[in-house]
Amino acid sequence: MGNADGVFPGTEFARRVPVPPPRPFLDTFRTNLKETFFPDDPLRQFRNEHGPRRVILGLKYFLPILEWAPSYSFGLFKSDLIAGITIASLAIPQGISYAKLANLPPILGLYSSFVPPLVYAMMGSSRDLAVGTVAVASLLIGSMLGNEVSPTKDPALYLHLAFTATFFAGLFQAALGLLRLGFIVDFLSHATIVGFMGGAATVVCLQQLKGMLGLQHFTTATDLVSVVKSVFSQVHQWRWESAVLGCCFLFFLLLTRFFSKRRPKFFWVSAAAPLTSVILGSVLVYLTHAENHGVQVIGYLKKGLNPPSATSLTFMPPYIMVALKTGIVTGVIALAEGIAVGRSFAMFKNYHIDGNKEMIAIGTMNMVGSLTSCYLTTGPFSRSAVNYNAGCKTAMSNVVMAIAVMITLLFLTPLFHYTPLVVLSAIIIAAMLGLIDYEAAIHLWHVDKVDFCVCLGAYLGVVFVSVEIGLVIAVFISILRVLLFVARPRTTVLGNIPNSMAYRRVDQYPVAQSVPGVLILRIDAPIYFANASYLRERISRWIEEENESSKGETSLQYLILDMGAVGSIDTSGISMLEEVKKIIDRNCSIKLVLANPGSEVMKKLSSSKILEAIGHEWIFLTVADAVAACNFMLHTCKASDTTSCENVV
Amino acid sequence: MGNADGVFPGTEFARRVPVPPPRPFLDTFRTNLKETFFPDDPLRQFRNEHGPRRVILGLKYFLPILEWAPSYSFGLFKSDLIAGITIASLAIPQGISYAKLANLPPILGLYSSFVPPLVYAMMGSSRDLAVGTVAVASLLIGSMLGNEVSPTKDPALYLHLAFTATFFAGLFQAALGLLRLGFIVDFLSHATIVGFMGGAATVVCLQQLKGMLGLQHFTTATDLVSVVKSVFSQVHQWRWESAVLGCCFLFFLLLTRFFSKRRPKFFWVSAAAPLTSVILGSVLVYLTHAENHGVQVIGYLKKGLNPPSATSLTFMPPYIMVALKTGIVTGVIALAEGIAVGRSFAMFKNYHIDGNKEMIAIGTMNMVGSLTSCYLTTGPFSRSAVNYNAGCKTAMSNVVMAIAVMITLLFLTPLFHYTPLVVLSAIIIAAMLGLIDYEAAIHLWHVDKVDFCVCLGAYLGVVFVSVEIGLVIAVFISILRVLLFVARPRTTVLGNIPNSMAYRRVDQYPVAQSVPGVLILRIDAPIYFANASYLRERISRWIEEENESSKGETSLQYLILDMGAVGSIDTSGISMLEEVKKIIDRNCSIKLVLANPGSEVMKKLSSSKILEAIGHEWIFLTVADAVAACNFMLHTCKASDTTSCENVV
Repeated sequence: MGNADGVFPGTEFARRVPVPPPRPFLDTFRTNLKETFFPDDPLRQFRNEHGPRRVILGLKYFLPILEWAPSYSFGLFKSDLIAGITIASLAIPQGISYAKLANLPPILGLYSSFVPPLVYAMMGSSRDLAVGTVAVASLLIGSMLGNEVSPTKDPALYLHLAFTATFFAGLFQAALGLLRLGFIVDFLSHATIVGFMGGAATVVCLQQLKGMLGLQHFTTATDLVSVVKSVFSQVHQWRWESAVLGCCFLFFLLLTRFFSKRRPKFFWVSAAAPLTSVILGSVLVYLTHAENHGVQVIGYLKKGLNPPSATSLTFMPPYIMVALKTGIVTGVIALAEGIAVGRSFAMFKNYHIDGNKEMIAIGTMNMVGSLTSCYLTTGPFSRSAVNYNAGCKTAMSNVVMAIAVMITLLFLTPLFHYTPLVVLSAIIIAAMLGLIDYEAAIHLWHVDKVDFCVCLGAYLGVVFVSVEIGLVIAVFISILRVLLFVARPRTTVLGNIPNSMAYRRVDQYPVAQSVPGVLILRIDAPIYFANASYLRERISRWIEEENESSKGETSLQYLILDMGAVGSIDTSGISMLEEVKKIIDRNCSIKLVLANPGSEVMKKLSSSKILEAIGHEWIFLTVADAVAACNFMLHTCKASDTTSCENVV
Repeated sequence: MGNADGVFPGTEFARRVPVPPPRPFLDTFRTNLKETFFPDDPLRQFRNEHGPRRVILGLKYFLPILEWAPSYSFGLFKSDLIAGITIASLAIPQGISYAKLANLPPILGLYSSFVPPLVYAMMGSSRDLAVGTVAVASLLIGSMLGNEVSPTKDPALYLHLAFTATFFAGLFQAALGLLRLGFIVDFLSHATIVGFMGGAATVVCLQQLKGMLGLQHFTTATDLVSVVKSVFSQVHQWRWESAVLGCCFLFFLLLTRFFSKRRPKFFWVSAAAPLTSVILGSVLVYLTHAENHGVQVIGYLKKGLNPPSATSLTFMPPYIMVALKTGIVTGVIALAEGIAVGRSFAMFKNYHIDGNKEMIAIGTMNMVGSLTSCYLTTGPFSRSAVNYNAGCKTAMSNVVMAIAVMITLLFLTPLFHYTPLVVLSAIIIAAMLGLIDYEAAIHLWHVDKVDFCVCLGAYLGVVFVSVEIGLVIAVFISILRVLLFVARPRTTVLGNIPNSMAYRRVDQYPVAQSVPGVLILRIDAPIYFANASYLRERISRWIEEENESSKGETSLQYLILDMGAVGSIDTSGISMLEEVKKIIDRNCSIKLVLANPGSEVMKKLSSSKILEAIGHEWIFLTVADAVAACNFMLHTCKASDTTSCENVV
């Protein structure tokens, strides 16, 4: 009709909006599946390879070490050696402290810095990630398992559950990677992580009051209220000795950190500070015998490497459930931190990291760890940052760290006998204060209020309720935001930008001029069941308002819907369009015109027969074409009555 | 710079993309709130009114009867009278049968067709909605309450719980309306409702096997498996008499329906059929004393109007929880059906219905009902359709029906003593078969596969598991679809449509021609945390592929992102853009150019300082402008080296 015959000016055949040819269902299904699960197209490299080459490529895919090891040089090793020793000096005290945080025997912290780094060095694709335990996950394990089993009353079972949870965490992480479900981690937005980390850091600091004040009994709950209660309920048990000691070391640590921040060349000062304070503290206690004056010490640490723990995994109900729950929650959080850290450093050094591959690596590392008396590990930000500053070149720095820890385990454990817990608390607090990123929160407030709410929700949830709840709140708000965006899409009136063919939002471009007799609406979201009826209401309201405003002038005769931003439409959306057409046909005999619909929309319009109702000649490539056609009709048909003119087209 | 000074051709100041002036936070917040909760702007009419007028308008807003009653004429009343009597003849048998479906005393069905219609006639804004009980909600009440309390062992408590649930349902519905949360109902998509209704209808038909076969004992479960089991476990209790009787009446009912469908003039034939068959059946039983031969009858029905039931509402734990749950679930479903029905008929007759107002009306009607021995009512499709066909003009037809039912309650109840249950079963089955809309399902399959999955999920869930589960499955799939759309947005390469300024998707328009040295990408969704990292990966892959494809030719130098369809962006999205810029700057020195960003995007770009990084002169009104600028740079700067040329701009 019209459009084909070129009845309208400038609407020759080439500019028609084509209906895409029908594709077999399975075909579209496959492409969608590929886009969803294999957006990075990992098999591309395999395509034109055969036989043994393929096997080698496959091995290289799962063991990146095979890629960089052959070209590994002594020069690289030197830098890795320095970096490795540096992070080791940080890893040992942190490992011990975080293990205490999870109510696990301190030695586990060292174990966990030995086996997992070796595994990751083989499988990991990041060059800067330094493997180790993290405060938040440790705290989570402590609180979640603590609700079921008391670490003091039944330490053996508690330990077994910790291993089992670690195993499940690893299994879950690896499964996510193998099933290409990496994008689940993306649902933890940056805002969520900022708020969550801040909250967790606050909670962890609060937990340290136990060590700082040398308290014997302490609540297992993590929320602000109950912690403060339990601290002030036992004012008389406070030990000034440990408090003083703790504050001194905390001050020392913060000072060194501040110094290193000012002079990046001296990064090693803050990196070495924890080990230094451990040594100082131990010597101090050894000389003054402060352990008899209310300063608690680590005490005896068993010599020797990781004992196997495969036999102590417990898959028996009722405990398997709590282990599973803990494993999945902590696993996701550890994964999110590890991948976020890996990605950010990869961006600095400008190399690529495959999220799914990382998941498999981290997962395997945890599964192996759970069989060798390690608990949940990932790539902590603090340690990786030190690793990066220390100038690491490859994952070899992890191997160096592992060896250093091994030597400690074999020969040096007795030296930690007199290490005061308060020093460990100081180390944790110092590390945590760095994680409360209030500047990021302020930035969020300036850029995006909703993200700020997400962040705040996560923070308050973690601090006042519990770590899990905080996470749930944040994710819920984030998803709600997405749903609300779809449920309440923006519809805006478009106007012509002077001396151009462009039509833009009049609220955004003050210069844009509206066309008399024509209302141009732009829909800014996919048309789904969630917004279909809203859009129907909104569009009819736009028309009412337009009619009221244009009293006397040329009355409204054409409604142009700019479908450019309508990425997709479902059946509810289709029927919405039908209803809109019926309504405006009936009460004000306005003609519905579509501009620039995407191929998905065109396909559904044609398959749902509404295309005939609208008329293919009333669908245009650009808004400009549509307006041209409308003006053409308006002016050629003003004299004669409209109906007959309609028939012409 | 460039763009401002008009260095590029055709980029004079008028065509710059403006950064919207900063608006006070509360201001934007208010507008967003208004768009979300008051899209229909209900207070518009109040604006230029004062004092008493306002009060009257307010009353009219909540009691639409005040609007149409004054102009109500005898002519209108005649049509309403006919329609009212017709639906009454349908209401009485249906009421009794549905009450049985909810395991409630049959008389409640009549009660529920007396008070609620009167309330709705005053408050409802639909002219065609006929108020009454519905099969699905009745079944739900039966199954959900039946899980907690046995209607046979403890009928009194069961009855009280039914009233309480109805009260909660009404409260919930009215609250939704008052809180302007009407859009929650929109999340039950058309596909969901089709599948859900079909499933519910199937389940209801299965339940009727009890009545058809004259069985004494029957399972309370509603799923296919257990129903079939319980039917075939008692083959020897089957009563052929009632089976034969039932089949005859079912055949009769279907025949009349078929006839009326063929000849719309004779709509009253199918409308009167149920009452006819009730009368025939009763007479038949009375004459043949079939009640002694295995044909169960209704038996004694108490004379008199609704007794008050305010005292029998039970808010005591543990039962309050089940009442609350039942109330909310059934309330939402009843609401969805009522509003869907009201809207569709309003569309036929082309008048407007306010969803939130309807919710308040339906809610109040149920709350009042729960105080006068009625259980959950709404606007059933079948009855409203008959009302519409019978030519009702206003809600007065509901009043007529109520009066007819009142007369029945006062004088005619004894006549129902001999009514055989099997006839009621036949009536229900006949009604339900009309609700299984397989054509709609086929249509869904043709138009939108995902919607078909939603529909199928709802259907299978209802039939094989339970009514609630079916609903949950459907809503879950629908929301997952929305999330997936946001998590995996389409990115497409654009090309120039010959002899036009338009740039369109090359996969959609075969004629579109790509521009050498320039890659134009279009992002088809808001950039959120959920898709930020995906988009980063995808864009870099596009660049790689482009570089591979354009070997030898002019290498890629400009990446133009068409932001036209990016309705909104959050902080994760902003940092994604920063990262993309860093990446393409570093490894292939490609310049990032933005085209046609919306005002929200511009605002965030500027507030997050990335605008400086990109350079305001590299943001263009249209893709055409951007391409023009890029070509200008490419050709003028080919001879000289690019860097110096960059500095020129």
